[in-house]
Amino acid sequence: MDDGFYMRRCVELARKAIGFTSPNPMVGCVIVKDGEIVGEGFHPKAGQPHAEVFALREAGNLAENATAYVSLEPCNHHGRTPPCTEALIRAKVKQVVVGMVDPNPIVASKGVERLKESGIDVVVGVEELLCQKLNEAYIHRMRTGNPFVVLRYSLTMNGRISSHLGKAAHEPGGYYSKLLQEYDGILVSGDCLSRTTSAETGANQPLQIIIANNMNSLHLPITTIESASRVVIISDKEIEVKPSSEKVETMVIKPLKLKTILDHCRYLGLCSIVVDLREEHGAITEVLGGCLEEGLVQKAVVEVCPVWDESREEYLPSVGVETRILKDLRSYVTNGSVLIEGYVS
Amino acid sequence: MDDGFYMRRCVELARKAIGFTSPNPMVGCVIVKDGEIVGEGFHPKAGQPHAEVFALREAGNLAENATAYVSLEPCNHHGRTPPCTEALIRAKVKQVVVGMVDPNPIVASKGVERLKESGIDVVVGVEELLCQKLNEAYIHRMRTGNPFVVLRYSLTMNGRISSHLGKAAHEPGGYYSKLLQEYDGILVSGDCLSRTTSAETGANQPLQIIIANNMNSLHLPITTIESASRVVIISDKEIEVKPSSEKVETMVIKPLKLKTILDHCRYLGLCSIVVDLREEHGAITEVLGGCLEEGLVQKAVVEVCPVWDESREEYLPSVGVETRILKDLRSYVTNGSVLIEGYVS
Repeated sequence: MDDGFYMRRCVELARKAIGFTSPNPMVGCVIVKDGEIVGEGFHPKAGQPHAEVFALREAGNLAENATAYVSLEPCNHHGRTPPCTEALIRAKVKQVVVGMVDPNPIVASKGVERLKESGIDVVVGVEELLCQKLNEAYIHRMRTGNPFVVLRYSLTMNGRISSHLGKAAHEPGGYYSKLLQEYDGILVSGDCLSRTTSAETGANQPLQIIIANNMNSLHLPITTIESASRVVIISDKEIEVKPSSEKVETMVIKPLKLKTILDHCRYLGLCSIVVDLREEHGAITEVLGGCLEEGLVQKAVVEVCPVWDESREEYLPSVGVETRILKDLRSYVTNGSVLIEGYVS
Repeated sequence: MDDGFYMRRCVELARKAIGFTSPNPMVGCVIVKDGEIVGEGFHPKAGQPHAEVFALREAGNLAENATAYVSLEPCNHHGRTPPCTEALIRAKVKQVVVGMVDPNPIVASKGVERLKESGIDVVVGVEELLCQKLNEAYIHRMRTGNPFVVLRYSLTMNGRISSHLGKAAHEPGGYYSKLLQEYDGILVSGDCLSRTTSAETGANQPLQIIIANNMNSLHLPITTIESASRVVIISDKEIEVKPSSEKVETMVIKPLKLKTILDHCRYLGLCSIVVDLREEHGAITEVLGGCLEEGLVQKAVVEVCPVWDESREEYLPSVGVETRILKDLRSYVTNGSVLIEGYVS
């Protein structure tokens, strides 16, 4: 087996913690001795030990002279857990293969340097694109300070926006359910409170942010409150929210624009957000104006529903006028709809 | 190798004649003796011999006791060429494996019956879906009498119609170039005379049908005339067309609707048509109203261009109000755009 094989296994392990590691990245680690995997681990949750610790624990004495594969550069600083570089050095591994350098300025390349200094052979950049994709939100936040934002919407074949998601998109394994499992928060319009929770087993539910500008009062459906982990109502003036619940809080933000909302998301500890567009004339429209030009959106996830429906009048709201090219396009058919993903360049 | 393997080879051979066989179907034939291919053939062009004739000619005496694979039921009638069933019987093949029964009422199952009567073992329906897909236009025309119509258009990521096709779509191997290679005719608006010829090497160029309603005169670009095999200008009243050319003819149709145009396409001998939508307000819009409800469109080919462009005002023209579901969706990324294909149910 080549290095790529073990690195892909690291990424597979890392993804077991999907939705649970924020604000930390997802990381997987595999210890290989004489062509056999002798230890595996992943970072399960912020505050808990890193991937390397679990893998080394499983490998025990076999880690000596082994190769450690890790999808992200091992940390070299004392955070909530001791540095992983020291654990690898103590375990006397011979080689460390790293997927990508940590973009976190307090880690960046320092882990690699520390390992090299101690005589360990270090290889960097194996399956690098895959490792970057795994933590695209974390990398973005480290580089810019802002949460990673994905804009999600559904179009009909004739280009209208649809508030109906495709068949089973909300169900376990559906793209929408998996998307919400992955992201820290979801932003929706108060005019359109559809189902916005993940159906994946044991998923960490995203914080729900409901935009309620130009509204004096908002009645939350019981299902929204029950299914959410926490709900934040953001409006441009004081608003009456019913029914009251411990889970629900309100926040006034002026001016109410995506930029100012994202600043508050940072304050709320959110590293990644789904902006869910369901209707043209929802309260969310004014909030989004210009967000593409301002570089506030990183990714688009577009469901093209296989319907031709001219009875619907709604088109996508304006989020930016300038021509923007999306790159790294991907598309696939899922549950009878076409899903398109692209990155805002 | 199993039957499916040889049948897929038949389809591969058949497609060598793409764009040349209309109004006949594309057909491929393979003769297999003792696990080896001893003869191959395909129907190259209407009026020329059928696939079986070429394959049997290549196999010679080896055809005796061999198995013949053919993607479409062999004909049993005297057309422009003698019946293929007789050729297979004379060659003393032991078995004939047929992809699908011919939907042509003067053939349908009669070829299979004739072979069985003469003591040949006949298997029907191997890789049947693939064989049907190969000749979807032919099958549709045989079943309904109407040409097979594909509606093609490009959308931006924000749901606007775009007159710009993606990078290299027109070039050899591009989806648009390949689409035009396959179809007998292309219908475009006289307001939007973009490049509408195939760039595939040696492609049979589609007949160009230009819709010019509400126009008194039409000036054809020299490039359109030079690149087309033949141009038909269809309008609702007499129209002056410049410059004059042997290739160009005019035709007045009232009322000018897709239904009446397709009737004339039948008269022109066209079995399959691309309706190419480039602008909302082109002359084609009025012509298309209601065409989905009337069942005049069989397939949609939609290019989703990776741009977000709100400077464009145009949306897709209205072609049918009722909600229509598209089935058998396929999608893939090609030359940086997403291509979606679906069938009108």
